[in-house]
Parts: sequence; C-alpha cells; structure tokens
Amino acid sequence: MSALPAGAAVGATVGPVHVVGTGLIGTSVALSLVGHGVEVTLEDPSPTALAVAEQVGGGRPRQVSDAAPALVVVAAPPDVAAAVVAAQLERFPEAVVTDVASVKAVVLAELAVLGADLTRYVGSHPMAGREKGGPAYASADLFMGRPWVIAAPPQARPEAVLAVRHLATDAGAMVIFMEAAQHDLAVALVSHVPQVVSTLTAARLAEAEPAALDLAGGGLRDVTRIAKSDPTLWSAILVGNGPAVAGVLKALRADLDRAIAALELGAGEATLGRAVLELAGLLGEGNAGVERIPGKHGGARTVFDQVTVMVPDKPGELGRLFGEMGTLGINLEDLQLEHGAGQLVGLATISVQAGLGARLAAGLEAQGWRILR
Amino acid sequence: MSALPAGAAVGATVGPVHVVGTGLIGTSVALSLVGHGVEVTLEDPSPTALAVAEQVGGGRPRQVSDAAPALVVVAAPPDVAAAVVAAQLERFPEAVVTDVASVKAVVLAELAVLGADLTRYVGSHPMAGREKGGPAYASADLFMGRPWVIAAPPQARPEAVLAVRHLATDAGAMVIFMEAAQHDLAVALVSHVPQVVSTLTAARLAEAEPAALDLAGGGLRDVTRIAKSDPTLWSAILVGNGPAVAGVLKALRADLDRAIAALELGAGEATLGRAVLELAGLLGEGNAGVERIPGKHGGARTVFDQVTVMVPDKPGELGRLFGEMGTLGINLEDLQLEHGAGQLVGLATISVQAGLGARLAAGLEAQGWRILR
Repeated sequence: MSALPAGAAVGATVGPVHVVGTGLIGTSVALSLVGHGVEVTLEDPSPTALAVAEQVGGGRPRQVSDAAPALVVVAAPPDVAAAVVAAQLERFPEAVVTDVASVKAVVLAELAVLGADLTRYVGSHPMAGREKGGPAYASADLFMGRPWVIAAPPQARPEAVLAVRHLATDAGAMVIFMEAAQHDLAVALVSHVPQVVSTLTAARLAEAEPAALDLAGGGLRDVTRIAKSDPTLWSAILVGNGPAVAGVLKALRADLDRAIAALELGAGEATLGRAVLELAGLLGEGNAGVERIPGKHGGARTVFDQVTVMVPDKPGELGRLFGEMGTLGINLEDLQLEHGAGQLVGLATISVQAGLGARLAAGLEAQGWRILR
Repeated sequence: MSALPAGAAVGATVGPVHVVGTGLIGTSVALSLVGHGVEVTLEDPSPTALAVAEQVGGGRPRQVSDAAPALVVVAAPPDVAAAVVAAQLERFPEAVVTDVASVKAVVLAELAVLGADLTRYVGSHPMAGREKGGPAYASADLFMGRPWVIAAPPQARPEAVLAVRHLATDAGAMVIFMEAAQHDLAVALVSHVPQVVSTLTAARLAEAEPAALDLAGGGLRDVTRIAKSDPTLWSAILVGNGPAVAGVLKALRADLDRAIAALELGAGEATLGRAVLELAGLLGEGNAGVERIPGKHGGARTVFDQVTVMVPDKPGELGRLFGEMGTLGINLEDLQLEHGAGQLVGLATISVQAGLGARLAAGLEAQGWRILR
C-alpha cells in the first residue's frame, strides 16, 4: 500500500485498482486513488505514456506476480473500450470492471455480443477533460465537482455498482445514475450537439470579410467558443454517438427549416405578421429551453442581480474591483467580461445574489467606479 | 447651450441636434451629446418616453420656435426608420439626417423609392444595447468602445459623413465604414445567425429529461447564453434582415446536412473512416472560422497563458484571488468561471499575457491556492 500523502482523506475504494490506459483520464483516476492511499497498478500499450503516468505518481506498472485487482478501470478510446473491458473481465474473474468511455450504449451492446460477464461490468463516464491530453496533464483534482455518470447494466451486481460509485465519490465527482441509452441521448443534447452548432456557426466566418469580424460581440464569442475544439478528438466522439447526435440534429434541422421559411416570407405587408410570429415562437422555445439548465447549486435556476461596471484596461483594476466587493461583503456569483476590438475599457457584468445589486452599485460608485445604469 | 458638466470633454459634434425617438438608443445618444455641451432637442410619439428622456437629462422637447437642427438622429424602430428619415429630410432642408436602425440596405432602398435627398442622409448602426430597453435605462456610456457602423450612400456629401462620424466618436464608439449591404451581411454573420443557432440549440432542451440537464457544462451554457434574448425584439430584428440571415442559414444548413449524413454513415468498419474524416473536416472549418474573430485589442487573435484555479464557494474568495494577482503585478485578460450543479468549488480559468502563466501559478500556489495542473 502506498504511503498516504499528508492531509489526504481515506477513500471508500477498496484496492488494489488496476488502471488500463494511462492517458489524461486514466492517470487522473490513478492519481486520485493514490491520493487516498489505494494501491494502483498501471498498464498502457504505449511505454512512454506508462512511464509518464508512473513518474507523475499514478502508481506502478503491473507485474505478473501482483495480486489480482478488486477493480479494473479501463480508460481506453471508445472504439476499443468494449474489447478491452471484455479481456479484463476474462483476465480477472473476481474483479469489477468499469470503463470511462464517453458513449455507453455501444460499449454495452458490444460486450453482450462478446458474451462478457455483465454482472461485474459497470459503465461510467466522468465528465471532465482539459484542453491538453496525455498523462503529463493529469490531475487528482480533474473530477472535483464534475458529473460522473454511472450506467450499470441490469445484470450488474449491487456491490459492483457500489465499487464504481466509491471510485467516483473518492474523486470528488457528483454521481448521476442513468441507463446507457439515456446517457447517450443526454450527452448528445448537452455536449455533442452544442459542439456541432458551434462549429457550423464558426465555419460561416470563413467567408466573412475582415471588417465584418470587427463587429463581433460577446454573443458570437460565446456561441463559437467551443468551435476551437480538437477535430481529431471530437470527430471520434461524434461518430461514437452517431445515432443519438443525428437524431437531435434532425430535430434541430426541422426548426432551422421553419426559421428559414419564416425569413423568406419577407417583410412585405401581407406576410410580415406571420413571419414575426413564427420567429417569435421559435425564440420563445429557446427561452424555455435555456431556462431548464440548472443554476449554480443544482436547484432551480437562481435569479441574480446584475451590475455592469466600466473597468479601465490597466493592470490590477479587476483585482481592485473584486477586492472592494469583498470589503462590501458581497460575493461574486458570476462574471461576464466584455472587450470589443480596440476598446480601452472593458465592461464587467457582475452577478450577485438577488437583492444585493443596489447596495453593490452604490458601494462601488462611492469608491469611484463608473456603473453602467 | 447647456452648461458643460464638470470633467466633460468638448465634443466635435456641431449642434443643435434633434433626436427623434427617445428609447434606449436615442436617449443614450442624447445624453452623450449633452455631456459634451451640445444643445439637444427631443421628440417621441410617446409623451411618457419623451418625459422620461427629458427627466434623465437628455435635453428638452423641441419647440416650434427652436432653430433648425444641424443634425437629426432618427432612433425609430427599423420598420418605420425610412419614413421618419424622409420626413425629417423634408422638414429640415439643411440638416444632415442619420438613423440608427440595425439593418441598413432596406432603409436606403426605401429612401430611394421615397425620393429622399440622399446627399444629406448617412445611415449608421451603433452596436450597443442592454437587456432592458427604454429611456430610463439610457446611458451616456452605452456606446463607449463599441463598434458604430457608418453606411453612407454614394450620394452623401463628405460633410454629412463627417457629422455622423463626429457623433459616433463623441460617444466613444469605434467607427467602421461599410456599404449598407455589406453591413447587413456582416451583422447576419456575427449577430443574427449566432442568435438563431443558440435559440435552436436551447429549444432542443425542452425535450430533455431533468437528469440530462444535470450533465450540462460550460460548453452548453456558452452556446445557449443568448437564447435568453427577448423574442419580440429579436423576431423584428431577424425579419428586418431576412434575406441576409436566410442566406447564411442556408449555407449553414448545407453543412448541417453534411454532418448528419456523416453521422448516419455509422461506425461500421466500411464507413468509419469516411465518417470521421468528413466530421473532422467540418470541425477544422470551425477552427479556422473562430480563429478569425479578432482579439481584445482588435489586432490578430492574442495568445494568452491560461491558469485554472480552484475557488472555494465562499464570499470574497474571488476578490482575494484577483487581489493577489494585482500584488503579483499580473493583469487579468479574460476569465471563465465554471460552476457545475451541486459544486462546492468553482474553477476559475484566468487568461494572462503569454509568458506570465508559470509565474502566476507559482505565485498563487505560494498563497495557498490550488492550481489545476
């Protein structure tokens, strides 16, 4: 058993745990476990990835003489996950095996075809990642506060589900139980489809003239932020969840057709009213959808007061602003910064608890800040 | 001439200026001019809007005995802008007349049909707004650092163009010269189409089960942020720019069809490679498009170092964080805050000048902050 680092909490996970695949996610899982004093062994087809994972403290390569693991974590790419899971179920007939692939139904279906022992398999999907991949960027904190979906097949034994749940909670994640197909539709809606529409919107800018881009504001920046994603990684993710993503995109295309038809009705006297009503209907459906996204603390969407402050573009100004908020005893709940091209001031829109906005604005004005009223 | 408020800079605009339409934009223009000591008269079909605009200091209602204005600013809704502009050109045969409508080609075309004097008309579009409308929310600072498009017809006299340019620069805006049709395509690309796709993405969430929404992350929140926009306002904006928006949306639909076709190829052995390549191609086009959005200071996209810090959910923590950045002499260039549902810590991703990231991370760690590495 590894020495327990100072200050680490003892986790609920029972080791040894064997991690197959020492990329960013696998090594981060390993680091989290090591941090809780769990014995971790490692395996990866790449000797380099394995060496880096060991070097950053994720455990040690598995030896033939090692005791069988209680839990195997398969952190392989989605297109090989099922085969690797099946091999590990065979290799360790007492072990619980989980995978971390970002699609779940196809993995489960392939395991059934392979005749794998589904009483010891529990699929999972820790919803965390970073811009940079590989074990060098791994972190024990990667899953802190993130959703971690557990998708157990009906055959899975309760103690197998519990083992994966301990793994997730030890990592500081928030566990959400779902069926595999339910998971795949959910990630299509909240992750894969937003990626596609962001990409398609950004792709239109290729044909824009430079002056047009000078008009870009916060809305365009928000919508296209994730269009920066890595094409190699994301094309594999999208194909892996192809049926669910295609289904949602087709529903979206039906609404897009409605929007185009309304816009083409034109602003002539006879059609203006119909066009406006149709578009207002679509925009209202968007309002209703965005209202369903949970607020900061998981409950209903919290209503905040917002105060917009003009911030000179000089070092330390935002620090001074938030320092003065601290002095006023008012906590920042959210922040949007806006900087247009060529601006010498920025606009900071501060969200605070409902009811505190007026006091914040008055307090900041007393300190010489300009509030946009 | 109004008394010059203490500290106000003398503007370049020559008055008197008559503002027709005292909503948010018209009254904000008026406040900016009054702040520069320019004489401003006001007019609005709504006596209430007029009274509020006068009350907040935007000038006074125009009297029959008043001298003719040098400049008329028409801040009427887009669907009546041309008629109001034509009437003002007739009424004041020496005045330059501008409008602030968010579409420009249709206004110009209607003016030509009406036989208006296009030597004295200069269209413009100050790209600023707020969540709340009406003169009560007007601000002299509304246009500070924002793009302000000037779309002059070829017939416009140079001194007419100059008068509108002075108006924009006095308001602190960044002037961009465009032709009317060029402007309408540009705003379709950078503003109207992002609004539509954000709406369509958010609308899909209506059919999601609650558990799916617990998986929502920063990507979904970014893409759907502007889906909260007001349907009444935005349906009018979209219809007003119908042809340009429909054109861009059709190009986007062609790419959407490509994405759906690739996803439906499926992940079978024979088709996997083609599906992945096609999607990676689309994602790469999105990468290229987003790279074209200018950076903070209007030049090429600036590259920043990013440091992700774990921030406990307690009052004053962000203030403390930014205060310590100030002590380190490092300026915050951008900030993304991430709070998943049910999280007790947030992740603050801080962008700083390239080269400063390592020093910032080390400095914050020395103060006890946890850096996500």
